[in-house]
Amino acid sequence: MHDTLAPLYAAHLATVIGHADRALAEHGYDHLLIAAGHAPARFLDDQDAPFVANPHFRHWLPLTDAPGSWIVHTPGRRPRLVFVQPRDYWHVVPQAPQGYWVEHFEITTVRSAAEAIAELPGARSAAIVPPGPVLEGAAINPQPVLDHLHWHRAYKTPYERALMREASRIGARAHRAAAAAFRAGACELDIHLAYLAAARQSEAELPYANIVGLNEHGAVLHYTNFDRAPPAQVRSFLIDAGASFAGYASDITRTHAAPGHAEFQALIDAVDAAQQGFAARVRAGQSYPELHIHAHHVLAGILREHGILRMSAESAVETGVSGVFFPHGLGHMLGLQVHDVAGFQRSERGGTLPRPPGHPYLRMTRTLEPGMVVTIEPGLYFIDLLLEELRAGPHAQAVDWTRVEAFRPYGGIRIEDDVICTEDTPENLTRDAFANL
Amino acid sequence: MHDTLAPLYAAHLATVIGHADRALAEHGYDHLLIAAGHAPARFLDDQDAPFVANPHFRHWLPLTDAPGSWIVHTPGRRPRLVFVQPRDYWHVVPQAPQGYWVEHFEITTVRSAAEAIAELPGARSAAIVPPGPVLEGAAINPQPVLDHLHWHRAYKTPYERALMREASRIGARAHRAAAAAFRAGACELDIHLAYLAAARQSEAELPYANIVGLNEHGAVLHYTNFDRAPPAQVRSFLIDAGASFAGYASDITRTHAAPGHAEFQALIDAVDAAQQGFAARVRAGQSYPELHIHAHHVLAGILREHGILRMSAESAVETGVSGVFFPHGLGHMLGLQVHDVAGFQRSERGGTLPRPPGHPYLRMTRTLEPGMVVTIEPGLYFIDLLLEELRAGPHAQAVDWTRVEAFRPYGGIRIEDDVICTEDTPENLTRDAFANL
Repeated sequence: MHDTLAPLYAAHLATVIGHADRALAEHGYDHLLIAAGHAPARFLDDQDAPFVANPHFRHWLPLTDAPGSWIVHTPGRRPRLVFVQPRDYWHVVPQAPQGYWVEHFEITTVRSAAEAIAELPGARSAAIVPPGPVLEGAAINPQPVLDHLHWHRAYKTPYERALMREASRIGARAHRAAAAAFRAGACELDIHLAYLAAARQSEAELPYANIVGLNEHGAVLHYTNFDRAPPAQVRSFLIDAGASFAGYASDITRTHAAPGHAEFQALIDAVDAAQQGFAARVRAGQSYPELHIHAHHVLAGILREHGILRMSAESAVETGVSGVFFPHGLGHMLGLQVHDVAGFQRSERGGTLPRPPGHPYLRMTRTLEPGMVVTIEPGLYFIDLLLEELRAGPHAQAVDWTRVEAFRPYGGIRIEDDVICTEDTPENLTRDAFANL
Repeated sequence: MHDTLAPLYAAHLATVIGHADRALAEHGYDHLLIAAGHAPARFLDDQDAPFVANPHFRHWLPLTDAPGSWIVHTPGRRPRLVFVQPRDYWHVVPQAPQGYWVEHFEITTVRSAAEAIAELPGARSAAIVPPGPVLEGAAINPQPVLDHLHWHRAYKTPYERALMREASRIGARAHRAAAAAFRAGACELDIHLAYLAAARQSEAELPYANIVGLNEHGAVLHYTNFDRAPPAQVRSFLIDAGASFAGYASDITRTHAAPGHAEFQALIDAVDAAQQGFAARVRAGQSYPELHIHAHHVLAGILREHGILRMSAESAVETGVSGVFFPHGLGHMLGLQVHDVAGFQRSERGGTLPRPPGHPYLRMTRTLEPGMVVTIEPGLYFIDLLLEELRAGPHAQAVDWTRVEAFRPYGGIRIEDDVICTEDTPENLTRDAFANL
């Protein structure tokens, strides 16, 4: 793996440096300083929250566990890593840097975070640093520099795509183990632990908190509790869980029906087929908001075909009824962060393009271009809160409430893949990973 | 369980209110406002670190998952809980408050953190709140009020002791499962997952990050990596892992030798016997720093008996050589936080009493009093960094380096129990929990 990554990394770093050079030149800085950051302290406590390195730091380096370290970039020079390796018997001391990326850096090893800061140029520097350290003279997180760098992070280099392929493979493997635990009758906590065991990742290493919901829990979009016992009757299972590789994320959702629940399985199959159709449209030039609206039409058609809605797909979308069953966005950018930056299209009038009216949760308003990696995650849910509003409103008669009652005990369905927009047919990281298990 | 807790809780709350009343009166405030707090946001990301409620909030209420909520206490009135229960299908909505504590509060349910803040009195209030929300007129985290409340948190009420007994039971049960996984040849990650499965707690719920170290990893005091594969030869296992119950912690360490490693087992047995001796001295009037120094003498004697040191225990302690093998404190306060507040004795000259010279890591300098809960966690380690310094120094000849080399592959030993100081013989929560498994 490292042999194939080495040449990809060299090209990736050149791209990253190019963006940094332009951002500095455009906004009048001589140096870019990027902190790995520190684990956030808990209030009035000496225990820290888990450490997650600044995504900008991880963009330059596959170094996910180097608290206190910095990257110093000065255009025209080899980038410098100021690497903190304390003399310490309390904690695991980070290994001396090694691997395919080391030769591209000038590395200075220091013994403490304070020593690292002493190594940094101050004046005429733009620093990307979580709140905390005081840097004399540097501009802290200047917004135009951040905007520039974030915008270009949307286009994943071949190196980044290779890392995301691996994150997808790990996620698919763990999803398979979780599905097996579900079929064996495990409770949510034990399904979660089976997932971790197969991913070979601890909870703190995952790119986001696992969503493991049985039955009605599938209707809570960010359900992150874990019940300690299985329900008396198990009907359905929704799992939204990813994996990390070298600081990059996968983000995968699957929904399963328990044996004997054929109607719910048929609804899953319909959403799955629709999802593959949406994923096939991840092509250069496709407006993502339009794809989102298209998904509403297709999902409304599924609701109609399955006897849940009596109105046409068109009117379901126009009236907002489709949004009762599909109340989140079709997907988002993915990369160093699970909801990666730069999902919002710049408006010609300044700021960002507004979301389509009635779709407040869409996290991606850009037109797809080669190199973007997005999730495609349509869903259909039976959410009490939203159903109550619908039933009290003017479109209540367009719904077969007996059918809704029949589906409510299943919670909901979401199917989510990670898809790369290429010059040609899209690359579906998730389907490929499952196919090659 | 809840039946026995109800009367204990009523008395506990009266104690907590009494301390709050005095702190407010002494420092001139009319109200005490305590925020549950929020999950800390990650830098430039929309993903949060796991939520851990402000320990002051958990001191009043066994409500560990109520982000954005507040307690408002005005002396002479029933305390008020401003409880945030959003109308939200994205996240699990906190259940309406229920249980033995509810009748003691006037509860106002609001739909958002902002609405909660609007419910708070501002002027003449002392607010204990993690950085974030702006409170007009309130004093934010005034140090004298914090000092007063922290000091009294050292004395655990019978209610708190009952909760800590349960946290110990959960921890002991999970330790047993981890030891079984170790004997079955599992790697560190899988031992950790076996621990979680038996505790029925997810990683984010634990009071601190589990330390699961095989072989040499036992020598890294806060080793929180998890190797994904077992070492070729398994010799030893050190596990420092606790559990939470209603916001209270247990903190337990055990060390195991693999079969056939009799000399290391003998060293474990010696440390274990010594540890029980120290735990027996957790009695009212015992100076904790003196107990720490006593432990140094006993541990130095063990090093001598096992042929590692050639000098007397007295000179080993005097010269600091014992500190090479036992380089941390004997223990600390335990409660709502794993390193609980108020471990440092007030000095008559102001500030806190200094630690004994040469013992910079001792977290507890108070004289024991009934109601205090402390850990007793002696250890003996073979730490390269410290051994190199010893070998280069004036006391190198007092060490049998062949014996040190023989023990280095085992990493180290730590045995840790949670012990309540009573009016009479101490209550060892950990030994009791193991005995009743």
